[in-house]
Amino acid sequence: MTTATSARVHNFSAGPAALPESVLEEARRDLWDLHNTGIGILEHSHRGGAFDQVIDEAEADCRRIANIPDNYKVLFLQGGASHQFFMIPANFLTKDRSADYLNTGVWSKKAIAEAKLYGSVHTVCSSDDKNFSYIPAPDKHKFSSGAAYCHFTSNNTIFGTQFRAEPTPPANTPLVCDASSDIFSRRIDISKYALIYAGAQKNLGPAGCALVIIRDDFAQSGSESLPTMLQYRTHIDEGSRYNTPNTFAIYLMGRVFKWIIAQGGLPGIEDINEQKAKLLYDELDNSDFYFPTVTDHGSRSRMNICFRIRDEALEKPFIQQAEAAGLRNLKGHRSVGGMRASIYNAISIDSVRALINFMHDFEKKNG
Amino acid sequence: MTTATSARVHNFSAGPAALPESVLEEARRDLWDLHNTGIGILEHSHRGGAFDQVIDEAEADCRRIANIPDNYKVLFLQGGASHQFFMIPANFLTKDRSADYLNTGVWSKKAIAEAKLYGSVHTVCSSDDKNFSYIPAPDKHKFSSGAAYCHFTSNNTIFGTQFRAEPTPPANTPLVCDASSDIFSRRIDISKYALIYAGAQKNLGPAGCALVIIRDDFAQSGSESLPTMLQYRTHIDEGSRYNTPNTFAIYLMGRVFKWIIAQGGLPGIEDINEQKAKLLYDELDNSDFYFPTVTDHGSRSRMNICFRIRDEALEKPFIQQAEAAGLRNLKGHRSVGGMRASIYNAISIDSVRALINFMHDFEKKNG
Repeated sequence: MTTATSARVHNFSAGPAALPESVLEEARRDLWDLHNTGIGILEHSHRGGAFDQVIDEAEADCRRIANIPDNYKVLFLQGGASHQFFMIPANFLTKDRSADYLNTGVWSKKAIAEAKLYGSVHTVCSSDDKNFSYIPAPDKHKFSSGAAYCHFTSNNTIFGTQFRAEPTPPANTPLVCDASSDIFSRRIDISKYALIYAGAQKNLGPAGCALVIIRDDFAQSGSESLPTMLQYRTHIDEGSRYNTPNTFAIYLMGRVFKWIIAQGGLPGIEDINEQKAKLLYDELDNSDFYFPTVTDHGSRSRMNICFRIRDEALEKPFIQQAEAAGLRNLKGHRSVGGMRASIYNAISIDSVRALINFMHDFEKKNG
Repeated sequence: MTTATSARVHNFSAGPAALPESVLEEARRDLWDLHNTGIGILEHSHRGGAFDQVIDEAEADCRRIANIPDNYKVLFLQGGASHQFFMIPANFLTKDRSADYLNTGVWSKKAIAEAKLYGSVHTVCSSDDKNFSYIPAPDKHKFSSGAAYCHFTSNNTIFGTQFRAEPTPPANTPLVCDASSDIFSRRIDISKYALIYAGAQKNLGPAGCALVIIRDDFAQSGSESLPTMLQYRTHIDEGSRYNTPNTFAIYLMGRVFKWIIAQGGLPGIEDINEQKAKLLYDELDNSDFYFPTVTDHGSRSRMNICFRIRDEALEKPFIQQAEAAGLRNLKGHRSVGGMRASIYNAISIDSVRALINFMHDFEKKNG
């Protein structure tokens, strides 16, 4: 079989995204034989002792990383963030109530659309006026009183914006966050949230699993008339194993959690991510050739850095030549255009430097 | 890393279950680098060219294997069969209507419970009177007229029973089947069904993905007021990529489909499965020491073979000694007791022979 020395490229995909190579090596070994059981990770019963250890360790390491308080549950659910978009209002919103949503991009809009099937939605703020290129400042946040919950999207993959700090709804309003694209990329205070969820496929593991961290009393307040699979309490009661979960994703997330701990936990990860983002934004801010699409420094994402070339005609050759040079998936989303470098946890600072070197070379040839 | 020569055992798990070793080898290679892209299968965007090829080939091979007519769609959805238990009635059952269900075990009962949240359920037949140890004969099937659909579970993992042929509801009643534990284990005529679904983790691949084969007009008849993710038409319109799917499971199912084709397709697979089951049932039928729990030959599963030892006290040592001999996961479900050998597609005839040899040895020592 192919060995670990075969050529791997710099992968700036917005997700599914690059994973730590040490984790991939472990997965390749365990696919054949997990912990000398003679059975690979894909082939173990989700109710057997070997998988008990896998999921127990994954949860324990997750709790350790984010210092998750005891009154919060950690769930590994199928369906990704899009499934949470309707599962949250199905549980917590009713026709006679309203929920607060901050509208900062495509993912917020999708979440809002699903919530409207269950009750009313109050828009706390929106950056729709400038193609979602900024995060509305806290003094523009108009919360309602008595909202069922307040939902925001912490990082916007498409537009390259990110909340620097959590919004602060009234004290009795449960805060709900879609952290799909920046979870565990920086320090986090879980106690500020009632529910935080994230599709795994950017910072945590492969596609097909969402990490859900939920305060127990909030979970128990959810509707009891929903299908069994749509009630958070079902998955709490059964430890994410009411039905057969995505066992491989849970296994791999567990390996990524151990990798995060080895990087110094969230403080260590945050420091590296700040360095990576600063390198690239400094480059863009100091350039006459390239420019960043998010000009408000306080709104800039550390995860997805969107940029363009002043001479737009050079963008297509830039992307093509970058591909050829082993710098992949730099094409920006069609709603923004240009380029996007997604630099999640597993993207090394060397990959960012390789991109910058390529940018210099390209500018020299075309500037 | 561990090589392919490390010791693998005989894995009789009911699911997640053994996979073909050649497929595991391919997955180990492609986890690092898929098709010389320099990016592993887990790290490829679900909207990129490399994954386009993966999902297109998986669908094409699936269609080829089961000769799926053009007016059927092939979907790869998250949530497993348990998700389908409520998604089906959510789409096709309303408070003023009734659906027909055949009650042949734990999975049927779970599906019925979810359907009752949406409308009425008429029980076509039940084998509850004898702990689900048989499949009610066709002359005991009492269908209603005008049912929204008729649902059955083709194979029962827990009790080791299996329909030999599809039930035959009135011609205008759409037939819906949970084929989680016997899909693609034998020839199938898709045109008899309106919808057939199967969690992947027994005969098709890893946990975390359900294969759904649905007749287009039936899908389009579903409710339009459901959350986007719960409408079959959403996933049809977006080719199973409305949101990020379980890309690895789709990849691996694709590899298993190619393996099935290499075994001679469903006719070849069915012949081997018949041989495997016959070997084991013959052994049980001719024994004074062991006995099968399903005595009705026409109700016997080719996938899950449940058996006991006449001297019940010997069952625990049997399971322990089998484990030590590399014959794993033979413990029966607690609701039946004794032993269960799950012999899905990827279990070789050699594994079945190894089990029979062990049974002989154990009987000699204890008989």
